[in-house]
Amino acid sequence: MIRLTSTAADFAESFARLLTVKREISEDVDETVRGIIAGVVAGGDTALVDYTRRFDRVGEEFTTASLRVTPDEIQAAIAACPAEALEALRFAATRIQAFHEGQVPGDHRATDALGVSSGWRWTGLESVGLYVPGGTASYPSSVLMNAIPARVAGVPRLVMVVPMPEGAMNPLVLAAADLAGVHEVYRVGGAQAVAALAYGTDTIAPVAKIVGPGNAWVAAAKRRVFGQVGIDMIAGPSEVLILADAHANPDWVAADLLAQAEHDMAAQSILITDSADLADAVEGAVERALATLPRAEIARASWRDYGAIVVVRNFDEAVPLVDRLAPEHLEIETEDAEALAAKVRNAGAIFLGSHTPEAIGDYVGGPNHVLPTARSARFSSGLGVLDFMKRTTILRCTPESLRALGPSAIALGRSEGLEGHARSVAIRLNL
Amino acid sequence: MIRLTSTAADFAESFARLLTVKREISEDVDETVRGIIAGVVAGGDTALVDYTRRFDRVGEEFTTASLRVTPDEIQAAIAACPAEALEALRFAATRIQAFHEGQVPGDHRATDALGVSSGWRWTGLESVGLYVPGGTASYPSSVLMNAIPARVAGVPRLVMVVPMPEGAMNPLVLAAADLAGVHEVYRVGGAQAVAALAYGTDTIAPVAKIVGPGNAWVAAAKRRVFGQVGIDMIAGPSEVLILADAHANPDWVAADLLAQAEHDMAAQSILITDSADLADAVEGAVERALATLPRAEIARASWRDYGAIVVVRNFDEAVPLVDRLAPEHLEIETEDAEALAAKVRNAGAIFLGSHTPEAIGDYVGGPNHVLPTARSARFSSGLGVLDFMKRTTILRCTPESLRALGPSAIALGRSEGLEGHARSVAIRLNL
Repeated sequence: MIRLTSTAADFAESFARLLTVKREISEDVDETVRGIIAGVVAGGDTALVDYTRRFDRVGEEFTTASLRVTPDEIQAAIAACPAEALEALRFAATRIQAFHEGQVPGDHRATDALGVSSGWRWTGLESVGLYVPGGTASYPSSVLMNAIPARVAGVPRLVMVVPMPEGAMNPLVLAAADLAGVHEVYRVGGAQAVAALAYGTDTIAPVAKIVGPGNAWVAAAKRRVFGQVGIDMIAGPSEVLILADAHANPDWVAADLLAQAEHDMAAQSILITDSADLADAVEGAVERALATLPRAEIARASWRDYGAIVVVRNFDEAVPLVDRLAPEHLEIETEDAEALAAKVRNAGAIFLGSHTPEAIGDYVGGPNHVLPTARSARFSSGLGVLDFMKRTTILRCTPESLRALGPSAIALGRSEGLEGHARSVAIRLNL
Repeated sequence: MIRLTSTAADFAESFARLLTVKREISEDVDETVRGIIAGVVAGGDTALVDYTRRFDRVGEEFTTASLRVTPDEIQAAIAACPAEALEALRFAATRIQAFHEGQVPGDHRATDALGVSSGWRWTGLESVGLYVPGGTASYPSSVLMNAIPARVAGVPRLVMVVPMPEGAMNPLVLAAADLAGVHEVYRVGGAQAVAALAYGTDTIAPVAKIVGPGNAWVAAAKRRVFGQVGIDMIAGPSEVLILADAHANPDWVAADLLAQAEHDMAAQSILITDSADLADAVEGAVERALATLPRAEIARASWRDYGAIVVVRNFDEAVPLVDRLAPEHLEIETEDAEALAAKVRNAGAIFLGSHTPEAIGDYVGGPNHVLPTARSARFSSGLGVLDFMKRTTILRCTPESLRALGPSAIALGRSEGLEGHARSVAIRLNL
């Protein structure tokens, strides 16, 4: 963990280093992934089954018929879920749905003074594939966060792929899929699943867009199939930035820093405060909390390698630092949290006040927890309904309005050396 | 040019071939581009000047001081523009701006029954770099189409890079930049310009997002810097699909097919009609129009290699074909154009009726002419104001509402094995 003070002579350099620290070891799996994709394109279901047997360590009994998870299996999984978790999932789904329903964009059409009618309409994508990781990173909450906005967007076909290594599956993931209206589920993962979603096999019809987190193979496969299908952002390790003043509770701040750090050894937790006393207290509270945290090994490594406490003179000084960090999650635990939030340009999601720990937003707040990482909040947004819709613009001229617009279009077409463009207008105006 | 009839026995196969025809020869410039980017990252302005001298064939007199186009040079360029083209550009800018102003999204904030306040706010990106190609593909209309939505989005810093091979520049491009509010212009291009925008040099401060068309080097560079900055879509060759019935004017339809074909030998123009007579007439009209078209060589190659006429029994049969083609531009010249448009899911932009040639949309219609190509209208939209903004979600719990949400968040955190998440909530509730 590094501690910086804005009054230090070398602060500018130290902060710049904090900004550029590389937290991801990018595995070079691109050639392997290229081969797998080509294999699925050429071999279809047979290749998909072969790769699954190999990578997911399932035996000869895994055949084409095993690819799809049956409705009975889904119902059995739901029955196997602990009632409390299932109830919490339902509660989360309701809140996430309500929040995202407010994001459905409106269509527009108007006729201007020249008689030109123009506008746009939004349409849900025809189909979306949701990648869900297997094993420990298989989070039912992420199924809800990815699938519910797609359903709200009106996507008629939602497909989920989830690897089940050695046949093991997380019943809560299937329960979340069912809750979110995903009823077409395949037990495949890795680059082979991405390839199947992008190019299709006999069993899995291709989709228009693939979303959801995955390991290095999945990320490389998504980059490769981009263009053939749409993809969401490539997520990096998670991060939180907390702004807290002297009134903040150091144990609560420490708990939030560690909730982020426990995700991944490459996660990053940063505190910016105007109080050196709070900085000291949080540092101690983190150590105390680590002592009893089940995932302490991961959290300790993240805090040690990437954690930071920055002491500033005042929060006006903090705002440009926040914008440069462009954090995925920004918690503001200061007295004037709303006013401070209004000054921030770059953040994926903001959590206001001391009673809004980021973990609430991970599950039941309502806003999406799929958010831009690695400073990409400078130019991108969290996942939402718009990611599952597309806009078609519409233009209609009458003979009269074409006469009004035509001469300018002809002049511009000619100025660009595109006489065919000019003629397609002129021929209608006898020019 | 191929002609298909939906009643033919092999129609399904023939249409599938039309869908999958590769129109782009992807040049493998990735290694070269990697070197250029590394060169600019390491060498800054000096490297930028070196690459520009070499690739743009400018001499030793091109120095760091030459990089920025001065306000005087911009004013001189404007003075050198033909008055008619300048007036047409102003007219286009006004219309494009009016259309895009309608796209500015609204912020949202509400408190639900549990007392949780949530919503989102949209913010313009802090800075955007606009790439403009040099030479013949240097289109002032594209400057307007890229820059105006960014200005409408409230982007405070707009930067343009445009190569000026052998010192030559298109004055209309500088005039369009000025009109669109872009006053920071650099005479650099290629991968070196993209690298400078992404990583910054002493002269060019880095931007948050890079948009605009370019050649294979520019496209490869944009793919490489993605993540460091945002990028727009990677545009492929342009395409038009025209739906026309027996009432359509074959000369007008032919003019529109050729307006697309003249762009590029890899452009694609397709007619779908329910009238074999119209199909015949358009075929003849294309040949006649080609005879006098200045860019006939390009248009003829495009029409020969990628052109298609599909005769269907009726337009209901055409709708799924349109959705599979997912055209960048869709013209509907049928009697029930609006009703037919309403049935289409996948198209970048729709031009309704026989008095709306696509070229109007290229220049003065108002909607953006930067549109999804290569079937990507299945999952993406044309350029718009949203591409220059980003959404930050906001969440605020009161002590009471945290008590209402907390137990579910704790249950889900524990079910996902993230005890630190659960504790960050529990500690605030004394649970």
